[in-house]
Amino acid sequence: MRQIILKGRPDGMPSLDTFQFINEDVPDRNQDEVLLKTLYLSVDPYMRGRMSDEPSYVKPFEVGKPLNGRIIAQVIESKVDKLKEGDIVTGIFPWQEYIVAFPNELRRLDVHELPISSALGVLGTPGLTAYFGMYHIGEPKEGETVVVSSAAGAVGSIAGQLAQKRGARVVGIVGSRTKADYIIETLGFDDAVNYKNEDVGKGLKTKCPDGIDVYFENVGGEISDDVWPLLNTFARVPLCGAISAYNLASDEEDIGTRVQWPFLKARIKMQGFIVGDYSEHFSDAYKELTQLVKKDELHFEETILEGFDRVPEAFIGLFSGDNIGKQLVKVAEPDK
Amino acid sequence: MRQIILKGRPDGMPSLDTFQFINEDVPDRNQDEVLLKTLYLSVDPYMRGRMSDEPSYVKPFEVGKPLNGRIIAQVIESKVDKLKEGDIVTGIFPWQEYIVAFPNELRRLDVHELPISSALGVLGTPGLTAYFGMYHIGEPKEGETVVVSSAAGAVGSIAGQLAQKRGARVVGIVGSRTKADYIIETLGFDDAVNYKNEDVGKGLKTKCPDGIDVYFENVGGEISDDVWPLLNTFARVPLCGAISAYNLASDEEDIGTRVQWPFLKARIKMQGFIVGDYSEHFSDAYKELTQLVKKDELHFEETILEGFDRVPEAFIGLFSGDNIGKQLVKVAEPDK
Repeated sequence: MRQIILKGRPDGMPSLDTFQFINEDVPDRNQDEVLLKTLYLSVDPYMRGRMSDEPSYVKPFEVGKPLNGRIIAQVIESKVDKLKEGDIVTGIFPWQEYIVAFPNELRRLDVHELPISSALGVLGTPGLTAYFGMYHIGEPKEGETVVVSSAAGAVGSIAGQLAQKRGARVVGIVGSRTKADYIIETLGFDDAVNYKNEDVGKGLKTKCPDGIDVYFENVGGEISDDVWPLLNTFARVPLCGAISAYNLASDEEDIGTRVQWPFLKARIKMQGFIVGDYSEHFSDAYKELTQLVKKDELHFEETILEGFDRVPEAFIGLFSGDNIGKQLVKVAEPDK
Repeated sequence: MRQIILKGRPDGMPSLDTFQFINEDVPDRNQDEVLLKTLYLSVDPYMRGRMSDEPSYVKPFEVGKPLNGRIIAQVIESKVDKLKEGDIVTGIFPWQEYIVAFPNELRRLDVHELPISSALGVLGTPGLTAYFGMYHIGEPKEGETVVVSSAAGAVGSIAGQLAQKRGARVVGIVGSRTKADYIIETLGFDDAVNYKNEDVGKGLKTKCPDGIDVYFENVGGEISDDVWPLLNTFARVPLCGAISAYNLASDEEDIGTRVQWPFLKARIKMQGFIVGDYSEHFSDAYKELTQLVKKDELHFEETILEGFDRVPEAFIGLFSGDNIGKQLVKVAEPDK
């Protein structure tokens, strides 16, 4: 089977050379383990941080060792009671075509109602991230204005819709005309600013005539520098990501507008978070998101590349905004 | 009597030319008003923001009109029941030698126990600001490490001591050897970094071996840029001031390290605040601070210039760190 290892730590933007495909034997399995076939593999911007060796909220990947992340897989051999062959499961595993796992490393997915891939998107980490950032930190209120960056992405697309459920007016920042149309027409956002062809500050000023009460921060950089002066008194900034800073080379610094004066003037709260900080609330959030999806009140999109060999391409594409919604790689078809 | 008006809006650092002394008649007084003599006048860094015309949390001063701020005064004529001649009061009034006021604009001070000037410092706005920033946002816990910038200033000196009451280890950032000695020997801080003669990042790294859990932000600029990488997971940043940004000229921008990546990695919360945001809790805070001062468990210093003509000098000196503790101007002696 094939496995993808980190060939070397990228300095700046990762390239195909960052990854190496190697052939490995399918691992041996004990009686109390199951054998899985990888079906879908998730690539996420946060993984870029793990490719560096600086300390962070997750352990760095090791050079020469397999990359890993959340995977959807199918049980193909099992002698344990809890899991039978054919079951669809999810867990965090190395990027390889077959996996040996203990049952307690896995969560079984209910495959009858929703596409299984949604466990990596709207009903997985991105959906939960949007939920906690928007509802636990952003706390949008009826009539407030919410701005979401990376609004067509896996997290932003959900975060914006969740803000609308609370009665907020939602404007998304995106990087293409197609994405602007998508968030307005398909997701129902109130408006969009395309940072590729308009001045973000001017665009937001026009499209947020009452200022901004919540800024869901996914990007950092110059886009956010333009947002700070538009924040209202007591605005909240759930700080979910800073994709513009992830691929800086070792000799580059992330320099821009200091936030102290605008944040002091308007008494703004910014809070960095990761989804794991809210693990005690996962089951409530998961139920609420599942209900919304089932009732067709929460829309989501997946951009799927087919084939294990396309994982590096899918990952690198995250940083040029190739994806709408959740970026996935489909590694194999499930067996019936 | 003399009055101080804003002669023109400063671009960059205010100078003596920013202020103009004019002679005015003592205002007429109605039966239900009292006549006051100004005793002490407070100069505060936040007033610099009011000298500009950009919108903020307080109305800008008007050019050609008197500056104003919190004052301690003595009643010298009164026909109202609540106030008698000789009473010491505080309120927010124009910078002038005599004031006519309604009783409901005034709070009478108890002059038996503490120096009356403390109503402009430890028992006034600076003390309350330190209290709410440290206890309501910073929330230091036993054994945590707290760093306070402008640690010898009116707010920082109190904020650091309050953190110690919660069992935290407190390191102050100051701008002179004298101030470093003062905060350690007189206030009891655990350590100090003098940004004028040592690298702030290296100094803090040595003196905060367990990282930083609360950073009480008074200064902004390069000092704070050096603090961000040292903040621990779930650190809190009460954002109280950004004095380094107050005197930027109109063609200067406040450019430095963007906070998103360090704040995301460590899931840091930063919150801008002003004391007025906590007005419903004033009386509790005031009681607690008063008790601490009476029991000699909270130390404070006042730097007092004598004479109404020295108000501009006192104000400008705030930005070169001339003061230890609260900067005041004594305008007149109280009558016995």
